[in-house]
Amino acid sequence: MPVRLTDLSLTVLETQYAVRGPIVARAAELEKAGRRVLYGNIGNPQALGQKPLSYIRQILALCEYPALLDSPATSASFPSDVAEKARRVLEATKYGLGAYSESKGVLMIREAVASFIAERDGIEARPESIFLGDGASKSVQLALRVLISSRADGIMVPIPQYPLYSATITLYGGTQIPYYLDEDRDWCVSRELLERAFMDAVRKGIKPRAICVLNPGNPTGAVLDHDNIAMIIDFARSHDLSILTDEVYQEDVYLTDFSFYSFAKVMADLGVSDVSLFSFHSISKGFIGECGHRGGYMEIRNLPDEVVEQIEKLQSVSLCSNLPGQVVTYCMVNPPREGEPSYPLYVAERDHIMDELRARAKILAEGLNGIPGIHCTRIAGAMYAFPRITVPSGKTDDQYCFDLLEATGLCVVPGSGFGQLPGTHHFRTTILPETAQIHEFVEKLAAFQASYK
Amino acid sequence: MPVRLTDLSLTVLETQYAVRGPIVARAAELEKAGRRVLYGNIGNPQALGQKPLSYIRQILALCEYPALLDSPATSASFPSDVAEKARRVLEATKYGLGAYSESKGVLMIREAVASFIAERDGIEARPESIFLGDGASKSVQLALRVLISSRADGIMVPIPQYPLYSATITLYGGTQIPYYLDEDRDWCVSRELLERAFMDAVRKGIKPRAICVLNPGNPTGAVLDHDNIAMIIDFARSHDLSILTDEVYQEDVYLTDFSFYSFAKVMADLGVSDVSLFSFHSISKGFIGECGHRGGYMEIRNLPDEVVEQIEKLQSVSLCSNLPGQVVTYCMVNPPREGEPSYPLYVAERDHIMDELRARAKILAEGLNGIPGIHCTRIAGAMYAFPRITVPSGKTDDQYCFDLLEATGLCVVPGSGFGQLPGTHHFRTTILPETAQIHEFVEKLAAFQASYK
Repeated sequence: MPVRLTDLSLTVLETQYAVRGPIVARAAELEKAGRRVLYGNIGNPQALGQKPLSYIRQILALCEYPALLDSPATSASFPSDVAEKARRVLEATKYGLGAYSESKGVLMIREAVASFIAERDGIEARPESIFLGDGASKSVQLALRVLISSRADGIMVPIPQYPLYSATITLYGGTQIPYYLDEDRDWCVSRELLERAFMDAVRKGIKPRAICVLNPGNPTGAVLDHDNIAMIIDFARSHDLSILTDEVYQEDVYLTDFSFYSFAKVMADLGVSDVSLFSFHSISKGFIGECGHRGGYMEIRNLPDEVVEQIEKLQSVSLCSNLPGQVVTYCMVNPPREGEPSYPLYVAERDHIMDELRARAKILAEGLNGIPGIHCTRIAGAMYAFPRITVPSGKTDDQYCFDLLEATGLCVVPGSGFGQLPGTHHFRTTILPETAQIHEFVEKLAAFQASYK
Repeated sequence: MPVRLTDLSLTVLETQYAVRGPIVARAAELEKAGRRVLYGNIGNPQALGQKPLSYIRQILALCEYPALLDSPATSASFPSDVAEKARRVLEATKYGLGAYSESKGVLMIREAVASFIAERDGIEARPESIFLGDGASKSVQLALRVLISSRADGIMVPIPQYPLYSATITLYGGTQIPYYLDEDRDWCVSRELLERAFMDAVRKGIKPRAICVLNPGNPTGAVLDHDNIAMIIDFARSHDLSILTDEVYQEDVYLTDFSFYSFAKVMADLGVSDVSLFSFHSISKGFIGECGHRGGYMEIRNLPDEVVEQIEKLQSVSLCSNLPGQVVTYCMVNPPREGEPSYPLYVAERDHIMDELRARAKILAEGLNGIPGIHCTRIAGAMYAFPRITVPSGKTDDQYCFDLLEATGLCVVPGSGFGQLPGTHHFRTTILPETAQIHEFVEKLAAFQASYK
């Protein structure tokens, strides 16, 4: 007899991942039937028109097919610094992109990541503490795997949050401890709400193990300031928690009065060295936007060697992350420097993308706030708006988003998929579509909102 | 306080993966200290000199950097069929390799996989039943995730086996039900041993859920015949088990009196349609050998839609597998056809690799069997020898392999990492090194074995 649904574990059945949930499936159906759909459900930059950086793709092409380097007819098409870096990558991998690398990733690339962190934050960073992964998602799962050993293990997760966290905690059989972000203060983290969430969990017999922080925030668009991060570190320290910090949107800061600070840097500033830290970065976001290449890294700090060995062992079971993704990670942390031949094009492409994202974030937030019944906080960073919406009494935001899709072809994710204060309603949409489409989005949404009953 | 080892779950601590275990770590130390090490521990073809197929790398380079297609200077360097296929891939992905694809993988590539299976086996195959993954390992883990819901769930695993299976079953909190392969009959599967393992498990209160079969076998090198596969299907059917069949070495069959039969084909031949089947293929093995690109697929059969939806949901949490790996999977299942410009070079490269592998398998098996105290079954397929060794009384094969490494620089994996009949000792080594190195391997091993006390 085939496998039955009732054979499956509850942890599998209960796992939810709204970003690719039933609304997106329905959108695909509508599109197949000839309807025009505007996808705002997922941060997939190149699917919404963002161009890949030439620098990255040139290095990838040369690494994939090194014969291009050998022939004068083809090698002339590549800037000399690109050719040199491709050669350096090939040499560092020893066997090119077709062989498994060390489980943690190619050493030279981990060294480049460590230099990037050291330069970004003015702190020490070690290649042995870097793990290259198939996107940040896989690394987050690796960290949670190590931290969850039973239902009693609690992981503090912001509400709203990116559902990778809730899905993985459920799947691994741990317990999610929700802590609310303060929408009235641009979704910042409040010590009071952290302590309350912590105490609630302890009262229920849960042992809090770690706190997850997304900075810049997904779906909130918030960028935490130095004080807020310092507060979270102090909170974690006083309660013996590890910190998981999702910093994949670190390049996506749009408002001039905000800056990105890494948790590693703030920890160093505070002189804290007894809190275990797992931080994540990705090639999928920022101006890189190479989602399909599935690359990124995890950096760990303040973990005993014997625990690090366990993480290495787990990583080794799937052998290594994909090499092209490792190469893109190398390109991300090692961009062309001023004076190198590929620098001007790189800067032009990068700045064009960032200018566009900044402009779109502004247009989208202003547009949303111009619609009666919809309110959106400042989009300081990341790639999303998470506006609060007014829905007719008795309706949910799930229903709202389904009806919006059917009526207008706009595909967004209901707030319930990320979590929200009971009684409030939201949806998430990305800032990524081209400006004309964002205007179209806002107009269609306004018309829908005005007539929705 | 940082995370302590004692905080980690037993399932993490107990997970073992010998292929990258302590012996390999010691080998790396020796190499760093200037010693010459011959690595036989892992099936990593391109790290041992196998060249990538030009066809695959050309398509990858064009997909990564499509500007190469637009310029006459560069496009002339690529055969026209390669250029055309790269265009087809780019069109099918819609946005190139930088965007997330559908969670299950690009539809056109899944269609190509389905055609490949249909053509290989003369049976129907559906793109909706194909899941593209970051290597077969990840797909195996996905299938086991669905099948294991508690410690009481048993998964039948051959002994010896590839430790991905034991590691994942341990990590997911299930129970391994070992069934022995019959070394005296070239490691084939015996019904009697299957029934015995099944009954033993049931007596212990375990509910057997599935049986894993590796064909061609890793580490055994066995290739199962049609009757043996039919017997396993009948066994699974009579005990209500799902089948997981690891067919990643399907191209690696070296002896003329053996042929590869897929479980899907034998099931169709038998008219069986009520046994759930998960089968796995990979771009890492055979003459492709693209381990670093982490690609492969899982095909599922005879699963109810509601279970398929759960698998799709789990796959969606990590968004999609890497696109370059998907492209290599496309190339694997859609090679150049006779008459296409890239066909002659493709055939020459492919045949050279297969001729080498065939010759090396023979040389290695003969060499091993020429050493007193060592006996090796026929290497009918896959990429390994798993010889039985005589060790001095009181010693283990772990000790043997460590001492071998220290004395000779040969790095192999002890039989204990794969499992073996108590009282027997083995190690696994690959057939991949170049012929001269295989001769060197055999000579050094012979000298070691003769003097080992």
